[in-house]
Amino acid sequence: MLFITTACKNNSGTKADAKSADTLSATDPLPSWNEGATKQAIIDFVTKTTTEGDDFIPVTDRIACFDNDGTLWCEQPMYFQLAFAIDRIKAMAPDHPEWKTKQPFKALLEGDMKTVMAGGEKALMQIVMTSHSGITTDEFDKKVKDWIATATHPVTKKHYNEMVYQPMVELLTYLRANGYKTFIVSGGGVDFMRAWTEKAYGIPPYQVIGSSVGVKYEIAADGKPALVKQATLNFYDDKEGKPVGIHQYIGKRPVFTAGNSDGDYAMLQYTSTGDGPGFGMIIHHTDSIREYAYDRKSPIGHLNKGLDDAGKYNWLVVDMMNDWKRIYPSEQ
Amino acid sequence: MLFITTACKNNSGTKADAKSADTLSATDPLPSWNEGATKQAIIDFVTKTTTEGDDFIPVTDRIACFDNDGTLWCEQPMYFQLAFAIDRIKAMAPDHPEWKTKQPFKALLEGDMKTVMAGGEKALMQIVMTSHSGITTDEFDKKVKDWIATATHPVTKKHYNEMVYQPMVELLTYLRANGYKTFIVSGGGVDFMRAWTEKAYGIPPYQVIGSSVGVKYEIAADGKPALVKQATLNFYDDKEGKPVGIHQYIGKRPVFTAGNSDGDYAMLQYTSTGDGPGFGMIIHHTDSIREYAYDRKSPIGHLNKGLDDAGKYNWLVVDMMNDWKRIYPSEQ
Repeated sequence: MLFITTACKNNSGTKADAKSADTLSATDPLPSWNEGATKQAIIDFVTKTTTEGDDFIPVTDRIACFDNDGTLWCEQPMYFQLAFAIDRIKAMAPDHPEWKTKQPFKALLEGDMKTVMAGGEKALMQIVMTSHSGITTDEFDKKVKDWIATATHPVTKKHYNEMVYQPMVELLTYLRANGYKTFIVSGGGVDFMRAWTEKAYGIPPYQVIGSSVGVKYEIAADGKPALVKQATLNFYDDKEGKPVGIHQYIGKRPVFTAGNSDGDYAMLQYTSTGDGPGFGMIIHHTDSIREYAYDRKSPIGHLNKGLDDAGKYNWLVVDMMNDWKRIYPSEQ
Repeated sequence: MLFITTACKNNSGTKADAKSADTLSATDPLPSWNEGATKQAIIDFVTKTTTEGDDFIPVTDRIACFDNDGTLWCEQPMYFQLAFAIDRIKAMAPDHPEWKTKQPFKALLEGDMKTVMAGGEKALMQIVMTSHSGITTDEFDKKVKDWIATATHPVTKKHYNEMVYQPMVELLTYLRANGYKTFIVSGGGVDFMRAWTEKAYGIPPYQVIGSSVGVKYEIAADGKPALVKQATLNFYDDKEGKPVGIHQYIGKRPVFTAGNSDGDYAMLQYTSTGDGPGFGMIIHHTDSIREYAYDRKSPIGHLNKGLDDAGKYNWLVVDMMNDWKRIYPSEQ
C-alpha cells in the first residue's frame, strides 16, 4: 500500500511530500549514517524484506517498534519526562502548602535532587503520579505541549524535542517509505509522548504505546464528559511488559525493533525469535563528546544483558560515535 | 494523505484497488443504503468535514470508531464469540473429566443452555475465561481462524464472517477513502476479533480495541518466548470503558462513532461533545424478517437510553429495515 503511495507522490503528491519521497528513492535514504557495516545491515534487511524472495515480508506484517528514551531521543542527565514532572510539581506547589514539609516534594522544591533520588523508585513514582493525575487528558495534553515548546535542556540549552536523534528520524522515514508501520514502545508515559511524537517522528498517537495511569470517564458540571487521569498505574511498559504491550496494543509480532537498554531486551528477543526474518537493533551510547557515553553501569539506560546477548540473537549494535554522522537535527 | 492514495490509484494502483476507488468516486459510495435522509446525513457529514470551511477536519483528526457486535456484524441469537467459546469448551472437554459434574460446564456439554444462562454473568465469564486462557496468543489466533472458516450460524447456516453488514462495510470503505482512520471499539475480545477483522472490514489488528485477558511473556523449554493468555481480566471495553479504551489505545477523541446498544452510549456521548463536528450513529435493529428486531427489552444489544437521548445529541438512528437495501454481502 505504501509502495503505491510513494510511487504516486512523484506524480501527484504535495510538493513537500514528493520531495522527501524523491530524496529517499533517488539518493541516500540515511544521510546521517556513516557508510559501513551498520548502515549496510539496515539497508540489506529492508531490501530483502521488501523484495520478492525467501525473506519477503507482506506489507501487513511490516511492524517496526522503537523504544523512545535513549533510542529516539536523549535521556540524559535525567529522563526528560522527569524534568517535566519536576517542573509541574513546582507549578503545582502554590496549591499544596503541605509539600513544604512533605518528602519527596520538600527536597524537590528546594532543588535538593540528591535527597529526592535517595528516596528511590518510591519517591520518583510519587512525583510522577502526582504530576500526571488529577487533571483531564485534554488539559494534560496542553500542559505537555506548552512545556515542550518552552523548556530547555540543562546542558545543550536546546528544546527537548530538538534532541531527537536525526539518524533515527531518517530510519523511521526510510522504513515507512518501504511499507513499514512504525510504533513507539516505551516505558515513558503514553500521554506525555503523544503530545509531541506526531510532529517529531511522524508517529500518530494511536501508534504510541507507553506506560499509563488509569483514566476515568466523568461528566462535568456543564454536562460535558471528560477523561480524568487517576493516580493509579494502568500499565507499565518496560521489560517483559514491552512484548505484552505490543500484543495488547498492536496485536502483531514486530519484525524490526530498536532499543538501547535492558528494558528493551524482552521485546528484542520477541522480535528475533519469530518465524521468518526479524531485525533487532541496540543503540549503544558511546559518544561522550557529542552526547553521553554509558551502558553497563548506568542506572539510566542500563545496558548489560543486551550487550552480552547481542551476538547470540544477531542484534545490530549501533556505535553512536562511529556510525552516526550527526546526532541532532541542528548539526550540519 | 488517503486522498492522494485514492487519486493515485486511478493511475498506478493495483487493478483490484483501483476498481474499488473508481467505484467510490465515480458512482454511489454507499450502494447498499436506500436513498433518503439517513444516507444523505452520512454523505453530508463526510462532505463537509473533508471540504475547506468551518466544519473541515484535518486528516490527522479523522478518527472513526465502530462497535462490532450488532453494529458491524450480527449478534443474535447469541454473541458469536460465545458460540466460539462453547465450541472450544466442547473441544477441550476430553482433557477435563471434572467438567462432567461441574457447572456451568456440565450443562453446556449436555446442551442445556437454559441452565447455563441461569448461571448469569458469572457462568458466562467462567466459560469465556476458561476458553480464552491457558493458551499462547499464536495458538489462540489459529483456533479462531479455524473456527471462523468452519463454524456456521444456527439459523442462516452462513459462516459467521459472512454475516457482516454490507452497508457498514461500504461505510468503512467510504470513510477511509475520505481520509478517515477506522477503528473497532468493541466489548468483544480483542484477540478473537483481530483474527478475522482485517479480512472482513479492512481494519488491521492495531486498530482493533476490545476487551482482553492478561497475557504473560514466558520462555518455553526450547528457549523461544511466547505470550500466554491468562485467566484474568485485563480490560473490559464496554460502557464507560469505551471512551477510556479510546483514550488509552487511540489517544484522540473520535469525530465519527457508530454503535447499536447502551454499551455504546458513553463513546457516542464522548464523540458528540467534543469541539467541532462529531457524528454519532445508532444502528436500530428493526428488521425481523431479514435479520432480528430488538431494542429496549433485549438483553443482547440492549438499547434504551440511547434511543431516549438520540434527539438530544443529534445521533442518527439507522432503521435497518427501511435504510438498508441489503443486510449481508451475499444478498443481491
